[in-house]
Amino acid sequence: MRGKVAIIGVGMIPFGELFEMGLEEMVQQAYINCLNSVDKGISTKDIKAAWFGQWSGGGMIGQGALCGASLATMIGNREIPITRTENGCPTGSDAFRNACLGVASGVYDVVLAMGAEKMRDKPGVESLIAAGGGGGGILGLHPSWMLGMGGPVLQALYATRQMHELGYTMEDYARVAVKNHHNGVACPYAHYRFEVTMERVLNSPIVCWPLHLLDCCPQTDGAACAIVCRADIAKSFTDKPVYVLGSNTGLDHKNMWDKHSFVEMLSTVRAARGAFEMAGIKPDDVDFAEIHDCFTNTELMNLEDIGFCKKGEAANLLREGYWNRDGAKPINPSGGLKAHGHPIAATGIGQICENYWQLREEVEPERQVKLKNGIALSHNVGGDAFGVSCVTILSRSL
Amino acid sequence: MRGKVAIIGVGMIPFGELFEMGLEEMVQQAYINCLNSVDKGISTKDIKAAWFGQWSGGGMIGQGALCGASLATMIGNREIPITRTENGCPTGSDAFRNACLGVASGVYDVVLAMGAEKMRDKPGVESLIAAGGGGGGILGLHPSWMLGMGGPVLQALYATRQMHELGYTMEDYARVAVKNHHNGVACPYAHYRFEVTMERVLNSPIVCWPLHLLDCCPQTDGAACAIVCRADIAKSFTDKPVYVLGSNTGLDHKNMWDKHSFVEMLSTVRAARGAFEMAGIKPDDVDFAEIHDCFTNTELMNLEDIGFCKKGEAANLLREGYWNRDGAKPINPSGGLKAHGHPIAATGIGQICENYWQLREEVEPERQVKLKNGIALSHNVGGDAFGVSCVTILSRSL
Repeated sequence: MRGKVAIIGVGMIPFGELFEMGLEEMVQQAYINCLNSVDKGISTKDIKAAWFGQWSGGGMIGQGALCGASLATMIGNREIPITRTENGCPTGSDAFRNACLGVASGVYDVVLAMGAEKMRDKPGVESLIAAGGGGGGILGLHPSWMLGMGGPVLQALYATRQMHELGYTMEDYARVAVKNHHNGVACPYAHYRFEVTMERVLNSPIVCWPLHLLDCCPQTDGAACAIVCRADIAKSFTDKPVYVLGSNTGLDHKNMWDKHSFVEMLSTVRAARGAFEMAGIKPDDVDFAEIHDCFTNTELMNLEDIGFCKKGEAANLLREGYWNRDGAKPINPSGGLKAHGHPIAATGIGQICENYWQLREEVEPERQVKLKNGIALSHNVGGDAFGVSCVTILSRSL
Repeated sequence: MRGKVAIIGVGMIPFGELFEMGLEEMVQQAYINCLNSVDKGISTKDIKAAWFGQWSGGGMIGQGALCGASLATMIGNREIPITRTENGCPTGSDAFRNACLGVASGVYDVVLAMGAEKMRDKPGVESLIAAGGGGGGILGLHPSWMLGMGGPVLQALYATRQMHELGYTMEDYARVAVKNHHNGVACPYAHYRFEVTMERVLNSPIVCWPLHLLDCCPQTDGAACAIVCRADIAKSFTDKPVYVLGSNTGLDHKNMWDKHSFVEMLSTVRAARGAFEMAGIKPDDVDFAEIHDCFTNTELMNLEDIGFCKKGEAANLLREGYWNRDGAKPINPSGGLKAHGHPIAATGIGQICENYWQLREEVEPERQVKLKNGIALSHNVGGDAFGVSCVTILSRSL
């Protein structure tokens, strides 16, 4: 895909507990922000197709299916094809990948990728904690779910194994929370804009040992979108397009008992390998990244699985400040899922918004990372037993 | 897309009430049949990406989300990206469209499109009748659903308006059932393989006036898949590839009260217009078609909306035998949704299987239609208030 597809505009809404907004308003506000972000202007009529990432309307707002007509009605564009996609926690990134394929196919010149999730309206056992790890088994037939194995429980299996095999500690995990909360304070779109200390994380209640409450990302409402187009026409919309070098989805077994390891996720390894191959670059070429830190231990594992460091090195590098916003390779300058929030289908496209802004050097000065190669990466992992991962690589030049 | 993408193999399972099979087995059997159908053989390793159409696992089997890892685990291929798509009743056709875009993008040479639905395991108000028209509002917040407006109720609004504006009668509708049941008898994959008479249809119970029970398609379990690849490499897999000339999705308002008409569906009009434009052909060039006859009146409306005849002419042409299997333009030689069944996400890909076999002239002699141009069309319409439609145009030559 390298060189064929560019981003010309992005938009999102501040993530949070948006009880006052319906899914429609969230989508509409993100879409308006996205249209308005296109430097030289764009009309809805320029958009020729769309992909709408939506994870689990069925569980969260009682709408089990959300066909293309839903998004068409929300954005007032019924003249184009729209596909709803779903792919676990990477739903947004995978919708973006499909949008890029649509442009690369030559069938559509300009398309929209959208992701939105309403997570907070519905309380009880059908909420994320229960549903996430078991494939969104909202009505409960997935075996992991019946064993009570929601997100934190599944991740605790990894966290304990990381401690056993790699020598990681609860302090190492807490340090991820401290870094990402610090970053989130400077991000106007983040759900949690407060600092946390090591002590506060380590004194917060245990959700599932060894994970404390403040090792877990929040449940968040949000919407985000991006407009992608043929790279060769991008400059008619903006003088500073951002190019898509690689976009790939990797899979693994859908059941925990089939996993080969609890310190590595093959879905991420595969997604990253394919994305780097597509982009023709190496992990060292990436300046900074948004990484799926649904739990603090997961960020450390992902950094290793993507290839930013060797297995077992991520925690030491964190201690040395390597992943800090002003470090050698800033990770989650937006605050990450931990502080920015994790509205499933909006998360991946929200990361792409952040990377677009950072590559164009238009975020608040205290949040702006230093650019060398002008290349950014974003990553998600989730779905049944973390069996789905997406990696997206963006660049400010071709 | 014309000329870029070809089908090299298809597979499905006999549709029906498959209480003895889980979703996994249904998918696996269809996949095996599909692999085995490739004339010169194919390996799972040749397949580089997949799209998995699945409408409403949430409602039907208590699995609200079905990420790519689900299909990967079912077919034993975790080395490729897989996206789950959903788009109302056209879910299968739209998954196929996305697969075609994947190949046309140049990123993947050979890909799989799959659709599967388990409709019969779950009884009660959450079943298709309640959920279909209201956007799969399984837990019931969609306004149409709250008004009790499931599939037959919504279609009855159209059927009565067709009677009022076009002079159609209950006998005209019954005649569609008679034709399609007759076709289904000869199809080994059809759910209902029995003839019905005009009297039997007209004496069957009214579901919602003017629609009788035998004007409605059944609720059916099923799975179907197709392998598509770059047209220029298709002959390394088969001497008789079938080419994809056009594939398009059209949308309309998601609420009934916004519709401009009850004798025409803009979603179908738009899907067909775009597909014909992409294919560079006219409706008259099509030899035969599989058309979305979820209700008998819907088939007549669709034939007009696609452009096979003028508005108000479809019923007369039916009476003259024009749409019969041995008529000028055979419609639903497979038996259609009416007799073949309607397992939502499997339906569209099942139509594509049928058209592939017909274009290759390999169905039972009594079912084989006569070919002139060697061009076939398939069509679905559904989703929220029938706001989504897909049209796929296949050809045995480029």
